[in-house]
Amino acid sequence: MDQLMREIHQQPEVLKHLTTDHFGQFERAASAIRTRQVSNVLIAARGTSDNAARYAQYLLGHQHRLPVALATPSLYTVYKTPPNLKDTLVIGISQSGTSPDIVAVIEDGQSQGMLTLAITNEPESPLAQAAELVIDCHAGQERSVAATKTYTAQLASVALLSAALGADGSILGTLRKVPQAIEQTLAQSDALESVSNQYAQLTHTAVIGRGFNYCTAFEIALKVGELAYVAARPYSSADFMHGPIALVEAGYAVLLVAPTGKILPEMQELAKTLQEREADLLIISDDADTLAAASTAMPIPHGIPAWASPLVAVIPGQLLAHHLAFAKGYDPVQPRSLKKVTKTL
Amino acid sequence: MDQLMREIHQQPEVLKHLTTDHFGQFERAASAIRTRQVSNVLIAARGTSDNAARYAQYLLGHQHRLPVALATPSLYTVYKTPPNLKDTLVIGISQSGTSPDIVAVIEDGQSQGMLTLAITNEPESPLAQAAELVIDCHAGQERSVAATKTYTAQLASVALLSAALGADGSILGTLRKVPQAIEQTLAQSDALESVSNQYAQLTHTAVIGRGFNYCTAFEIALKVGELAYVAARPYSSADFMHGPIALVEAGYAVLLVAPTGKILPEMQELAKTLQEREADLLIISDDADTLAAASTAMPIPHGIPAWASPLVAVIPGQLLAHHLAFAKGYDPVQPRSLKKVTKTL
Repeated sequence: MDQLMREIHQQPEVLKHLTTDHFGQFERAASAIRTRQVSNVLIAARGTSDNAARYAQYLLGHQHRLPVALATPSLYTVYKTPPNLKDTLVIGISQSGTSPDIVAVIEDGQSQGMLTLAITNEPESPLAQAAELVIDCHAGQERSVAATKTYTAQLASVALLSAALGADGSILGTLRKVPQAIEQTLAQSDALESVSNQYAQLTHTAVIGRGFNYCTAFEIALKVGELAYVAARPYSSADFMHGPIALVEAGYAVLLVAPTGKILPEMQELAKTLQEREADLLIISDDADTLAAASTAMPIPHGIPAWASPLVAVIPGQLLAHHLAFAKGYDPVQPRSLKKVTKTL
Repeated sequence: MDQLMREIHQQPEVLKHLTTDHFGQFERAASAIRTRQVSNVLIAARGTSDNAARYAQYLLGHQHRLPVALATPSLYTVYKTPPNLKDTLVIGISQSGTSPDIVAVIEDGQSQGMLTLAITNEPESPLAQAAELVIDCHAGQERSVAATKTYTAQLASVALLSAALGADGSILGTLRKVPQAIEQTLAQSDALESVSNQYAQLTHTAVIGRGFNYCTAFEIALKVGELAYVAARPYSSADFMHGPIALVEAGYAVLLVAPTGKILPEMQELAKTLQEREADLLIISDDADTLAAASTAMPIPHGIPAWASPLVAVIPGQLLAHHLAFAKGYDPVQPRSLKKVTKTL
């Protein structure tokens, strides 16, 4: 098992610790947040962490009715005209905690007197030092260039913070079921390895998710792109209907993220339309009828509610990206021309 | 000249009228906004209109220091848990004004007592009827499926609203220079027609812009995708460095949107890196040195400041998408499987 595969397989363990041993830090952050007037959230992040930010946008919106904006770092670092904030919780998400543009958004939040929070795997990093509150993702060192366990640890951190903010007592219980669901999902690794050989010629694809799994579409597209050099473009199913669907012709590969939940009927409808166009459908779902429409079915276990499904639904995508890299003759552990830590202004 | 090309060429005329004869509506909207407490802006839009929303995020952020969030319609229409808004101006942008998800965000804003504004080409549409304030883009009927003149009219509407809100007296004067700059840019149409034949085999590309022209990257990628069936993915140059740059190998086509401004040095740096990897560079710029690095140079005139450049920089992209469609044997006026108006929930 190579380093990337090992880290993919460490995810159940990382999440088990985070949801149990390390839950105290979320309760402390939540109490600090409750002492402040917070009517908006602003999140700064890049790359994989930006996909965790997308998850936060839906989860905090859904569970706490908080309007969440994604920051535009260039307004801070390039144009030097940061927005005037009011009653805003400013969150920076970064595995390494070192990207100067993300640190700049937190520093500006501090200087405007806002409450700031860093979600990072490096609690001594510049990002953590700049923020008033710090959540440590406790994912352990990630040596592969591609982020996998730090991504799901960021998603879990967002969900645990939401749980600690007290939307609903059942949230924590659900999150504690996630490690086992991931474990079960990982079992399809060998099957996906065989499937990947059929896709060795794949050069481009669309990855579609909506709502809670909008982030999953982005993250799978990012992984498949950086590991297997497939030009994978993520879309919300609604945006996809507003134009990009024109790209689909017979044999075009489309990956649908379609777990049970309020989005499922729309995804099933889309699957039908895509089948009529003879697209090559890869489907991630816990619903047998939905999976039946796929040429490549990537099952996830039942019983995880929609809001927690992004933690599980990304797993087949990680496995696919890894195996596809091998099938296409690339090294998924050290992708060409990428560094683990990217510092942008 | 086909219908799409005619509409592309109508843009100077549309913008001339909008910035002169129809400026009154922006002043009226701005006065209404000034009577209210507005500390945040929330914008709902899909497809091309969403790219105009992206422009508003940077322009209102830069010129008025307003934090601007892009709405997540599924929280309204699918999950039925809209965020609780406070002191928020809610804007819906839609050419047709009919997409139910965008109307839902405006209706919810109204019911929460927020000020609402529709920016649309159809002042009698459901969106316009739902909103308290209406800005009519006055682009005239757009018959091609692909939005071109309605897009630049939306960008101009955002900029004219910003001007009316009174950031700086020179804004309006600058906007009135834009029609001529577009006129000059359109003159390269024949040259781009010949160039397009060299790209008849193009299947995928990355389109890169940042800051004010982040929207331009998205809009050109959308046009090239829906008209010429090229899988074009937009990126901010900062995000591109965090992973997707791995996709670039010799001959990979990358389009850079690089007009003069604070982003230019970063784009020049990126151009250098991409040249080292022997990428096939298409560059839109008003800077001769920058254009010199391109295999396909797409010049725009000097003298338009960065904040207004998206109105001009998108033009070569529209022309390229049109000509590329022909070069690849498609009909750019009626792309397969797209409708002019897409209604999503």
